[in-house]
Amino acid sequence: MGEKVSVFREEHFNAAHRLNNAKWTESENQRIFGKCNLPNYHGHNYELIVKVTGEIDPETGYVIDMKLLSDLIRDNILNKFDHKNLNLDVPEFKELNPSAENIAVVIYNLLRPLLSEHLSLQIRLYETPRNFVEFPAV
Amino acid sequence: MGEKVSVFREEHFNAAHRLNNAKWTESENQRIFGKCNLPNYHGHNYELIVKVTGEIDPETGYVIDMKLLSDLIRDNILNKFDHKNLNLDVPEFKELNPSAENIAVVIYNLLRPLLSEHLSLQIRLYETPRNFVEFPAV
Amino acid sequence: MGEKVSVFREEHFNAAHRLNNAKWTESENQRIFGKCNLPNYHGHNYELIVKVTGEIDPETGYVIDMKLLSDLIRDNILNKFDHKNLNLDVPEFKELNPSAENIAVVIYNLLRPLLSEHLSLQIRLYETPRNFVEFPAV
Amino acid sequence: MGEKVSVFREEHFNAAHRLNNAKWTESENQRIFGKCNLPNYHGHNYELIVKVTGEIDPETGYVIDMKLLSDLIRDNILNKFDHKNLNLDVPEFKELNPSAENIAVVIYNLLRPLLSEHLSLQIRLYETPRNFVEFPAV
Amino acid sequence: MGEKVSVFREEHFNAAHRLNNAKWTESENQRIFGKCNLPNYHGHNYELIVKVTGEIDPETGYVIDMKLLSDLIRDNILNKFDHKNLNLDVPEFKELNPSAENIAVVIYNLLRPLLSEHLSLQIRLYETPRNFVEFPAV
Amino acid sequence: MGEKVSVFREEHFNAAHRLNNAKWTESENQRIFGKCNLPNYHGHNYELIVKVTGEIDPETGYVIDMKLLSDLIRDNILNKFDHKNLNLDVPEFKELNPSAENIAVVIYNLLRPLLSEHLSLQIRLYETPRNFVEFPAV
Repeated sequence: MGEKVSVFREEHFNAAHRLNNAKWTESENQRIFGKCNLPNYHGHNYELIVKVTGEIDPETGYVIDMKLLSDLIRDNILNKFDHKNLNLDVPEFKELNPSAENIAVVIYNLLRPLLSEHLSLQIRLYETPRNFVEFPAV
Repeated sequence: MGEKVSVFREEHFNAAHRLNNAKWTESENQRIFGKCNLPNYHGHNYELIVKVTGEIDPETGYVIDMKLLSDLIRDNILNKFDHKNLNLDVPEFKELNPSAENIAVVIYNLLRPLLSEHLSLQIRLYETPRNFVEFPAV
Repeated sequence: MGEKVSVFREEHFNAAHRLNNAKWTESENQRIFGKCNLPNYHGHNYELIVKVTGEIDPETGYVIDMKLLSDLIRDNILNKFDHKNLNLDVPEFKELNPSAENIAVVIYNLLRPLLSEHLSLQIRLYETPRNFVEFPAV
Repeated sequence: MGEKVSVFREEHFNAAHRLNNAKWTESENQRIFGKCNLPNYHGHNYELIVKVTGEIDPETGYVIDMKLLSDLIRDNILNKFDHKNLNLDVPEFKELNPSAENIAVVIYNLLRPLLSEHLSLQIRLYETPRNFVEFPAV
Repeated sequence: MGEKVSVFREEHFNAAHRLNNAKWTESENQRIFGKCNLPNYHGHNYELIVKVTGEIDPETGYVIDMKLLSDLIRDNILNKFDHKNLNLDVPEFKELNPSAENIAVVIYNLLRPLLSEHLSLQIRLYETPRNFVEFPAV
Repeated sequence: MGEKVSVFREEHFNAAHRLNNAKWTESENQRIFGKCNLPNYHGHNYELIVKVTGEIDPETGYVIDMKLLSDLIRDNILNKFDHKNLNLDVPEFKELNPSAENIAVVIYNLLRPLLSEHLSLQIRLYETPRNFVEFPAV
């Protein structure tokens, strides 16, 4: 095989959420999460960048077919998250606070088993243009 | 007074919403609004650009003090819309469907009385980076 | 009907082209068009913003359903232009130089008959992030 | 001649400035201009978009050659403003406060005589990504 | 504690500066730094991205509260640099040339003592949209 | 020498290409590369970010003079790739499929010998705003 390259594919989804820890009182939640805790939810245009690292296949010149990667993200992440309420509609967040950090870990765990073991994976998630996260950290 | 110039100030807010016409059946709403009608809401990072047109004050070189314009938007729009559920928390949308078009008209109507009659006003609102609206149309 | 609003939908396509006037000599073409005239083509990620202006439908809150507008652009513009060589593959440019100006006029002429007469239309086309055009001019 | 189209060319320059009205006292200047009045200057990456409107030349497919327009901006605006202190180095601002509004008018007045009478001109100037102006207003 | 994640917060400031080495002659400075050495300063809209890496707190879902991180940057960096002349107003650059590289190191040294030892820190600084730096290098 | 910093310079070029493996049949090429294999080429606005890592020179405050780095990229990459057909005009792709991955490796190999051994190099290449690659992978 060829040189080791990282390839990145950007997709986006729109979702509602609120931050809340069910084990805390209402006033504790308000003190810690501020307006992110407001009861009727708010929302974001999440921008998702999926990074896949591996060797170039000399036959295709690809690390992974970007069309295939895009389809994988669409089928397994966008269909599950887009135009949804993360707290109410996505089972992974029934007990888990949908912070950007936790959403990135959940997306990683959904995609990791779908990729060859020879490829490594990293998730970057923009909650707003000025706030974003990466998992795993390098 | 001096030359006529337009000045623009960009601000943003994050909010949840869903599209729904209370006079229609559930299946009509689903057919017309698709996933934008999903019951538990979704959300957006709305980017708002407020355009104010008027003559340059020769003393200051300003059409309007951008700090003052920014404060006006913050106090009257962001405090009302940011981190809120437009359908549930904003009285203007109790009866009115919070489409991007209608949100832009509501923002215009909130800001218009707060500006001098010598200034004209236009609202541009991005619901996503690829979908946006302007009111009034030129 | 309601207030008059403009709505904008952004789409993109990737295409090859070269600038050339078949009535000129080779050296005239090189002098006028410079490296845009190179014989083996170059290409761009064209960003297309379609602006539609009309009154808000009070039932839907829409000027036009953005999903429908997006489908219209996909079926009539992207399918025809995307991943193509504009000079060789698109009949409209058999005789017409595919400058950004001319591409914008061609797109307008393709979309105009597909929209209701009550709606007005404007095309913005980015050839690069620093060069773009609008038709019709306002 | 052909259809009427607007073409846009984006350029940028970096400059220092401060806002100050020489006819006011120091404390009046501080009250009106706040931190924009600080004595040792601050600066911006100004993004300049020059819009030229006219008919398409059927021979070239151009309203104006973008290379020529870019050279015109470089020779007459960037060479004069880039990496300069607007208050100290640019004669036009010896008496005139270099607000974004006034800079846009000065740029318009520098470029207008250099363009054919058949072309119309508009200047958009970004002082920051969130603050920008247009002259003439439409 | 939970998974290791990086979080990023973007802020910006506007400042004037010039590049100059006090130990060199004027002509040496001009030869090396070109128009960045012009005597009356120029300026930039600096975009600052602060990256903090650590484990997710399972109670909050946060690596660090982004509001708190934003306040930290505002109080310790923006208040010191924004709308200032880096050479004249910021003591750290009395002897040190305010190149983007050196500004990034200074920002790192100001923020590092304010963060828990369990968190690691990296600074990305955009001097212009096309020129940026990162410290520490990875 | 001083602290180790990474500096980044962004440049762009416009080029035509198609994906094709000369050892495969036409129908195999169509199946694997889809519309990227269309015979008359398509094209992109490639955005190139060159990252150079090294120690700050305490005399200049630079890792490398960005003007010098920009010239190096212009002379060795842009002059070779810009407004060209990668398959037909660039000898490196006579046998090598011009995928984004392979283009990044070719650019790295062209620039690496031109930089001091004390500096390390990484290439990021955007084929579209949503598809990009990095070489070497970290």
